[in-house]
Amino acid sequence: LSVAWWNGRLVPAAEVRIDPGDAGFLHGDGLFETLRCDGGRARDGAAHLDRLLAGLARVEIAIPEERAALAEALAAVAGEAPRPVARLRLTVTRGVAGAGSADGSPTRLLVAAPYAPPDAETYRRGVAVHLLPDFRIDSCGPLAGLKSLAYQANRLALARAEERGAWEALLANEHGRLVEGSRTNVVLVLAAGAFTPPVADGCLPGTVRRRLLERGEIAERPLAAADLAAAREVILLNSLVGALPVARLDDRELAAGETAARWRALLP
Amino acid sequence: LSVAWWNGRLVPAAEVRIDPGDAGFLHGDGLFETLRCDGGRARDGAAHLDRLLAGLARVEIAIPEERAALAEALAAVAGEAPRPVARLRLTVTRGVAGAGSADGSPTRLLVAAPYAPPDAETYRRGVAVHLLPDFRIDSCGPLAGLKSLAYQANRLALARAEERGAWEALLANEHGRLVEGSRTNVVLVLAAGAFTPPVADGCLPGTVRRRLLERGEIAERPLAAADLAAAREVILLNSLVGALPVARLDDRELAAGETAARWRALLP
Repeated sequence: LSVAWWNGRLVPAAEVRIDPGDAGFLHGDGLFETLRCDGGRARDGAAHLDRLLAGLARVEIAIPEERAALAEALAAVAGEAPRPVARLRLTVTRGVAGAGSADGSPTRLLVAAPYAPPDAETYRRGVAVHLLPDFRIDSCGPLAGLKSLAYQANRLALARAEERGAWEALLANEHGRLVEGSRTNVVLVLAAGAFTPPVADGCLPGTVRRRLLERGEIAERPLAAADLAAAREVILLNSLVGALPVARLDDRELAAGETAARWRALLP
Repeated sequence: LSVAWWNGRLVPAAEVRIDPGDAGFLHGDGLFETLRCDGGRARDGAAHLDRLLAGLARVEIAIPEERAALAEALAAVAGEAPRPVARLRLTVTRGVAGAGSADGSPTRLLVAAPYAPPDAETYRRGVAVHLLPDFRIDSCGPLAGLKSLAYQANRLALARAEERGAWEALLANEHGRLVEGSRTNVVLVLAAGAFTPPVADGCLPGTVRRRLLERGEIAERPLAAADLAAAREVILLNSLVGALPVARLDDRELAAGETAARWRALLP
């Protein structure tokens, strides 16, 4: 039976239930992290904890745990997580509070679920993506760059892409610049190099994106529609799939190159 | 003990617990309604059900209940709700589903909690509001006009207003036009009449707003910053407070007129 970490304690996952007055359920008022876990080991927990703690400070949710306690919880839940591959989800909400107040103690929850990564053929051939023309990320919005529980817009975008047979929806911001996918960062391989949009354009600072930036494999640059049209390769990044090539962008076929496979081999 | 309506059944409210895999908790993927309940009777349930059902169709969440069954549930929970005044919350989420899927059955929940309305003095004098200069509602966004569980941005806006001693945050859209409060619609009383922003500018179609539009008390008109500066009265509307005058807009004092009190007397 799966183990969860819930408000500081390890418990059987089946025991975890959320109070209907939790701010996460009432208003999506919280943040989350999704981590991949291979053979009982969480991948790049350090990057996920960095992002979570920075986000919690920004939305002013104060949790009682120090960073080390969160890292211990990650290791403990990962060790009991389904094998060979699991998805870990770490959620922190503003908690249960009185009506209209924000004074409750935060809810902290880490759970594991089985995860089936894309198969080798999908990695080789790549996936289809759909550019949503009328969905605009507000690069200056209060949630820009946060992995907020208020994620419904992204879910609706993904559902629209899936209706068209695509694996991911690509999203632009209010200036028409490419920002990210509904659950991925995006990289365009152009003649001048491999580029991903800057956080100032409204994207989430993804952990895989971060590691590839640190290694100099990619660089930040605002990306216009013309860049998307000129891209030799388009690659999606997130903590579950690593780096996944795009084979089709709406009606346009793309060559899935070797870049994504090379990047996957570099990741923590 | 309070009664809740949960997935088609009446149960003791204390029994209600949300699965941590619920799309409402995972991603704010759902909608809600807040109703006022006076002496065991829900106010204007018809308008709330109209809006909820229209919203569910838009986000493609299909619930098993017909409208009449929802109205019955409202009446049943209202009858057992705290007195004299309660707040009812009707929540519908995409439910519990497999990883990355959206095929779960929806979660439907109606709960009641005590509610203390503003006192007579507050209604007479009015409340303070803070105009958030850097928070922009995307009038064309996928969630525009929906009472989405993905409400974190509104909660953060309200928290910022409260830090400044204000009761509400006023929000503008990407064109700089006034849209609404974090939990209210807004009306400006100008020389030419009483105006509220059109839904096309990104506001939620509130139930009190709707009733005042139907009676010809207010009309829709895009409202610029200059209109806010010229307003003789500023009035906030929602289903809990009815109509509440504004006494202060940041550093500017406003006269709380008789309009809000007259409107409250007209509401269902």
